[in-house]
This record gives sequence, C-alpha cells and structure tokens, in this order.
Amino acid sequence: MTRQEKETGGVEWRITLGDGSSKSLVPETGPVSRVWMGLKSLIAGFVLKVWKFLKKAWDIGVDDPRKVIHCLKVGMALTVVSLVYFTRPLYEGVGGNAMWAIMTVVVVFENTVGATISKSLNRVFGTTLAGFLAFGVHWVASQSGHKFEPVVIGASVFLLASAATFSRFIPSVKARFDYGALIFILTFSLVAVSGYRVEELFDLAHQRLSTIIIGTFLCVLVTMLICPIWAGQELNALISRNMDKLADSLDGCVEEYFDHNGELEDSDKQPGKNLIGYKCVLNSKTTEESMTNFARWEPAHGRFNFKHPWKQYLKIGASMRSCAYSIEALNNCVDSENQAPESIKKHLSNICLKVSSNSSCVIKELAKTIKTLKKSSSIDFLVEEMSDAVQDLQNEIKSLPNLLRPAELLLPKSKETEKTTSPIYLLEVIPVVILVSLLIETSSRIQDIVKTVEELANAAEFKAEDDDKAKQNQANMNRIVPSQQDDDRQTEKALERV
Amino acid sequence: MTRQEKETGGVEWRITLGDGSSKSLVPETGPVSRVWMGLKSLIAGFVLKVWKFLKKAWDIGVDDPRKVIHCLKVGMALTVVSLVYFTRPLYEGVGGNAMWAIMTVVVVFENTVGATISKSLNRVFGTTLAGFLAFGVHWVASQSGHKFEPVVIGASVFLLASAATFSRFIPSVKARFDYGALIFILTFSLVAVSGYRVEELFDLAHQRLSTIIIGTFLCVLVTMLICPIWAGQELNALISRNMDKLADSLDGCVEEYFDHNGELEDSDKQPGKNLIGYKCVLNSKTTEESMTNFARWEPAHGRFNFKHPWKQYLKIGASMRSCAYSIEALNNCVDSENQAPESIKKHLSNICLKVSSNSSCVIKELAKTIKTLKKSSSIDFLVEEMSDAVQDLQNEIKSLPNLLRPAELLLPKSKETEKTTSPIYLLEVIPVVILVSLLIETSSRIQDIVKTVEELANAAEFKAEDDDKAKQNQANMNRIVPSQQDDDRQTEKALERV
Repeated sequence: MTRQEKETGGVEWRITLGDGSSKSLVPETGPVSRVWMGLKSLIAGFVLKVWKFLKKAWDIGVDDPRKVIHCLKVGMALTVVSLVYFTRPLYEGVGGNAMWAIMTVVVVFENTVGATISKSLNRVFGTTLAGFLAFGVHWVASQSGHKFEPVVIGASVFLLASAATFSRFIPSVKARFDYGALIFILTFSLVAVSGYRVEELFDLAHQRLSTIIIGTFLCVLVTMLICPIWAGQELNALISRNMDKLADSLDGCVEEYFDHNGELEDSDKQPGKNLIGYKCVLNSKTTEESMTNFARWEPAHGRFNFKHPWKQYLKIGASMRSCAYSIEALNNCVDSENQAPESIKKHLSNICLKVSSNSSCVIKELAKTIKTLKKSSSIDFLVEEMSDAVQDLQNEIKSLPNLLRPAELLLPKSKETEKTTSPIYLLEVIPVVILVSLLIETSSRIQDIVKTVEELANAAEFKAEDDDKAKQNQANMNRIVPSQQDDDRQTEKALERV
Repeated sequence: MTRQEKETGGVEWRITLGDGSSKSLVPETGPVSRVWMGLKSLIAGFVLKVWKFLKKAWDIGVDDPRKVIHCLKVGMALTVVSLVYFTRPLYEGVGGNAMWAIMTVVVVFENTVGATISKSLNRVFGTTLAGFLAFGVHWVASQSGHKFEPVVIGASVFLLASAATFSRFIPSVKARFDYGALIFILTFSLVAVSGYRVEELFDLAHQRLSTIIIGTFLCVLVTMLICPIWAGQELNALISRNMDKLADSLDGCVEEYFDHNGELEDSDKQPGKNLIGYKCVLNSKTTEESMTNFARWEPAHGRFNFKHPWKQYLKIGASMRSCAYSIEALNNCVDSENQAPESIKKHLSNICLKVSSNSSCVIKELAKTIKTLKKSSSIDFLVEEMSDAVQDLQNEIKSLPNLLRPAELLLPKSKETEKTTSPIYLLEVIPVVILVSLLIETSSRIQDIVKTVEELANAAEFKAEDDDKAKQNQANMNRIVPSQQDDDRQTEKALERV
C-alpha cells in the first residue's frame, strides 16, 4: 500500500462496490504510457501546427493563383537550366559555369517582369563593370611585385567595397541599383582575389558573363512569356482598386452614421467590410513605391508605353492617402459615443448622403479613368455636381442655428422641423457639425485627386472615351444609383481578376 | 555673299563703322567650335550632376556617421577574408572555397546586428538542410539508372524549388526565413545537379559548409564588436524619438492655431519644422516591422534581454499612428481658411494650450520611459492632469453657447467676454469647436499609447525610477514649463546622438 501511494503521488481514489469491498482507482499510467501520452500530444500539436500552416498556404494560393503560377515558373526555369547543364557534355562539375547559370536564375527571378528585368540588368552591368575594374587592379597588383601585391589588392577591395556599400545608402541608388552595387562588390572581390593570370581571367570572364547572360535571358523570357505579371499593370490596378475602396469606405461610413440604429443592420449589406477599405490606401505607400520603381524598367506592354509617366502614380497615391486620412477621421465620428440627436441627423441625412454619394461617384469615375486609361467625358460634370452638393450642405449648415432657437422653430420650410418639440442645444449639434465639416474637407481632397489624375491623363495622353459611351454616361448620370451598381460590379470583377 | 548667307542661316547682322563702311557680324561658330561648345556644356552638366550626387552622399554621411562606419566595417571584413584566402597556400582559385567565404561576407553583412545574425543563420541552416535533401535525391537518382537520372533530378528540382518559392509568399515565413528559402533553392539545385559521386559530395559539402560558417562567423564578430548597431536599440530609439516628434507636433500645432496672426511669427521658433514631425510616425510602419523582426534574432545587449517583448513595440507604433492621424486632422484645422473669430479663439486659447501642453507632457514622459527603460513614477499624475484639463475644456465648450446669445453676453466670469460687442454666430464658432473636439480625441488616443507602453513596461519588467528622481519629478511638475524645456534638450541630444 505504501508503495502504491508513492507511485501515484500519495493521493488515492477509492470506489465502494456493491458487495461492500472497495477498489482503489489507480490511474493506468506507468512511466512508459505517460511518456507515450506526452509524445502523442506533442505529435498532435505538431500535426495541428503543420495543418494550420498548410491551410494558410492553401488559402494564399486560392486567394491569388498567380502566386502559384509564379512558383511553377521559377521551378520550370530552374529545371530547364539545371537539365541543360546536367546533360551537357561540356559540363565540368559544380565549380564550373553551370553554377552561375543556376545561381542567376535563383537570385534574379522575381514576381513581376519589371523586378526581374531590373535585377537582370543590374546583375549583368554590375558584373561587367566590376570585372573590368578588377582586371585593371589585378594587372597593377601583378606589376607591383610580390611584396606589394596583397597590399594593392587589399586596399582596392577595402576602398571599393566601402564606397559601393555607401552608395547603397543613397536613396536614388538604393531605389534602382541596390542589387547592382551588391553584385559589383561580389564580382570585384572575387576577381581581384583570384590567383589567375590576366590572360586566363579574360577567358574566365567571358565564359562567366555569357553564362550569366544566358541565365538572365532565360528568366526574362519565362517571366515575360508565361502568364506575365507586369509591375506597371499591377500598379495601375492597385491604384484603381484602392480608389474603389476609398469610395466604398466613404459611402459606407456616411451611411452607417445616419443609419446608426437604423434598418440597414439586418439587411445583406456588410458595412464593416467596406468601412475599413481605406486602410489599404494608408498602408500601400511602400508597395506603390517599389512597383513604380519596377514599372520604369519594363518595356511597352498592353496599353502602357515605355515612357508611361509612372512617377505620377506616386502623386496620385499621396493625394489618395491625404483623402484617406479624412475618411479615417470620418470613421471615428461614426464610432464616437457622442452622437447628435436623431432629429438633427434626420434633418441633415439626405444632403449628407447626397454629398457622400456624389463624392464617391467622382472617385469611382477616376478609378474607371485609370482602369480604362481613357479620359472621362463626365468627370467635369460629376465634380460640378459634387461641388453643388457641398454648397447645398454648407447652406444647410448655415441655416442650422435656426433650429437651435425655439422662437424661430416653426419654419415653413420643412415639416420635420415643425415636429421638433424640445429645444436643441449647440453642444448636441457639434458631432454632426464635425462630420459635415470632415465631409466637406474630404470632397476638397477628392478635387486634389482629380487634379493628379488629370495630370496623369495629360502626361500619358489618354484618349477620350468613345462618343457613344459618353452619351450613355450622360444618360446614366440622370439615374445615378444604377450606374453606381454597374461600377460596383465592374469593381468586383476587377478584384476577382487581379 | 550668297554663300555666306547660306552658312549663317540666311540672316545677317551689320554694324556701320565710323568711316561709313559697314561690316557684317558673322558669329564665330564653325561646325567644330559648335560641337566643342555642345561638348563643353555636356561635360559641365555631367560634372554638375556628379558634384550634386557627391554632395548628397556627403550630406548622408555627415547626417549619420554610423552609415560610414558600417561601410568601413564591410570593407574591413571583406579585406580580411580576401587576404586570408589570397595569401593562404591552400588556395585553389576563384572556383574553390575562397569564393564561398567572400560571397558569404558580401551577402550576409547587414547594417544591424540582428539582420546580420538572421541572414547568417538562414544561410547556414538553408545550406545544411538543402545539402542533406539534395544528397538524398542525388543518391536516389544515381540508383535509378542512367535513363531516369535526369527525370528524378529534374522533377525534384521543379517540385522543391516551386514549394520553397511559394513558402516565401507566406507572411510568417517571409518575415523570418525569406533568405533561408532562397539559399535552400540555390544549394539544392547546385548539389542535385552536380556531377560528383556521393563520396566526393560529402567532402565538398563539409568544406563548403565550414567556409560558409567561417564567413558568417567573421561577419557576426565584426558587426557585434566594432561599433555595433543593434536593431533592438534602434527600434527603441525610433519609437522614443517618434513620440517626442508627436509631442512637438501637437504642441506646435495648437500654438500655431492660437497665434495665427500673432507674435510668434518673428521669433526664433520654426513651427513648420516641428509641425510635420508627426509625418515620420505615419511613415515608419515598415521600418518598425523590419526592426522588430531583426531585433528578435539578437542576443541580450545593453539594457535589453534576449526575451525583450519586441512585438509590443508594434502595438505601441500602431497606437502612435492612430494618434498621429488625429494630429494630421488638427494640422488641417490650422491650415484651414475658415478661422473662428479672434474673440472666441482668445477665450479658448489658454485652456486649449493647457490641454495640448499636458498631453504632450504625457507623450514626452512615455518617450522617457521607453528611452530609459524605467517605469515612470509620475505618469499617472500626468495622465490625471491631462484628463482634468480635458474636463475643463469640455466644460468650457458647454458654456460656449452663452457667448452666442447677446442677451447673456455679460457674464461675470471673464473680462474678455465683456469686451465682445458684436454677436457671434454658430457658424463662426464651428472651426474652433472642431479643433477642440480633435484635441479631446487626441488626448483619448494618447491614453491608448499610455496603455500599450504600460503593457510593455510590465512584460519587460521595467524597474521603477529612483526615488530621488521621482521626488525631483514631483517638484518639476509644479513648474511644468522648465521641465518641458529640459525634456526638449534631452530630445535634441538624443536626436544628435542617434
């Protein structure tokens, strides 16, 4: 008994059976089975983690199949270059030239065409420049005698490596030639340190450079011919998609504000999803910058010329972010605990919704302009409509103090005002006044976006929309809601496609 | 004459001399001199460009000498490894092992310790794992006969390269093992394709791995021992610096608003510079994320443990950005064309300035907490003061409607109100009301920052400030302005230092 107590840790559970005898409930865990249990739960946890990881990976693949295609492209390019060198009779082992071709493919192959071309050119020119310089240094070193040779080599490696590393801190170099500088350092050190004679070096350099060029050529070919992903096209789609998101956020935000306790809650709409769309705009600065950099390396493709003014997209992005900041502030109004009285809200609801829907129409028209690369024939009209609505809103706000003075409550203008029985105080009105002023601010920022997009249209010489379409647009404008739905459908399609 | 006309392009200038004869003024530009002029302006332009580029580079170096030190460190490490292999008798040319050591140093050496360690470990483990896998595949391929060998090799390269490329799209892998995946693909392809026999492969792998380890070891040593730049320390300094900037922006913004046509314009202050400090906060998300990633690889250093809760810094950064958004909105109020009447501004000026100075005091105290890694003894007191000021401001706003009614203008409370002779309308008050509400919003967001910093202090087990200092702080609090100046000076010092 004492022994058993020790084994189970000193505590024992007893169950009294029907015949009066009692039986001790010893947990069935010897040391072996306990280890087994621990191992089992460990394995289960590991399997679960792997499963979750795989599920995440699967989701990423389903979400954007082009990523999967990119992976297959890398695999293909690598297999081709591997097999060529594997089956080739000239092949001389890993140390030989095969290595440089494989290495080039692994390092240079990027997701977008622009990035691949940028890295390829950087690699080729970095290697060439460094090779020539190193050749010169090598010759000088070999002439300066056995004693000074290491000094000359060491000093040149030190100086050039430091200088090239420093150049990578300079923004203009970092943006376009970062990889080239790295390859420069690498090649220069390798060649300068090499023990070959100058004549041998030329042969070696020639072979290696041609291998690298073959590798980069293969990469550029595969990336451009098999389901190409153009950085420029991506940038264009990103900006246009972000504009649609801005418009949806603006609409959703103002709708949510005026239907706070309203009927929309049970409907099919999911305002939460649309509302935070503007955050994508806030966070896409880095992506836009790198896309712009890559796009500038790309040749003419699809509807984009070689000299497409990609830099203008940065300006458009900046103006969109500025607009997103005020939508962020609008969004805070919606979440705020201080809400204006329902009567005031109702009073301003229609005109505010009109301003927001007109504003978002302008943004969506801009998104369409960018998507189709065609000058919009209706943008001026839409901007004017937005301005008019803003003007109406400003007038409405100017007449707001009348609501606040009980003496003048019974205005003939609106029936709603008549119903108002309790006086409304300034303090209660403030939340809605803030919302209105932010709405006005937003629409003035949208005009900045209009300007930047117009600059793009002029610089890239967008063509005008077809006349037929223009007429159709004019017709649509009279029934704004259907045209908006149309836009929405286009957006969804675009989102699915990209 | 006709010939000369042709040469000068058909137009001729004549000057009439004293003796009545006239002389044609032929410009002295033959084709040669014109080419020479063009060349000269071309060269001048080129020299100017180079000069500008060098000046920019110089400014970058002066601005942050640690960048220069980093470059010298790279140069040094590379020179050491080059010379070791250059002078070593074992040396067998570029194709040999020297290459891998040089390549490792070039590719692995990064600005911060964390980044270098991360890349080093990624390189070593990526190479090892891929080497073993490739060894297995190689063995299978060599067993499957001459015909199937390329098929097995090709299929394995295709599959593993695709899978590894795909893994780089998964955020958790991308953040920490991106470089490892790249090296994995590279090594696997190289070894799998290699024509060596299995026994040779082991020798080769052993040599190559040891060379890589030597290279990484040298990098880590140099980066840690010579003027180390720790990603963690940088992150800590960045967050604390950004907090100071936030505080300065907030202060500057509110001051500028209330002194819009005021006395400050001619003084030494440069509000423009301080005002836009918050933009740094808006743009530093990417930097914070990468720094956090690198910091997690770093060993304990200075005042930071190995298990310092770096991820919490991301939360602090997010709460700071949220605060920066409302400062951005505040800033727009300052720039806005619609301004409240001076009398109202004057009326609210003191209390608004008090709220902003109390708020910025809280932020600066938080900055100090993060800078010194010590729990602040006065933060609760400061937060309370801020809340009190906000409460006062809210009360002031509640009494604002009184100012709007001419009948009740003559309040006994303030003399300024008495002077107001013309009635003030609601619409005129709106701008200042918006400013006030944003100020209140800002202070509530500052409380979020306080929470996240407190979480950090608890997770990292910050010690309390010394009692002496605490008393001194208590004393300082009674004369807030001097203590603020003190903080300012500390900030400037910190900025100079970092």
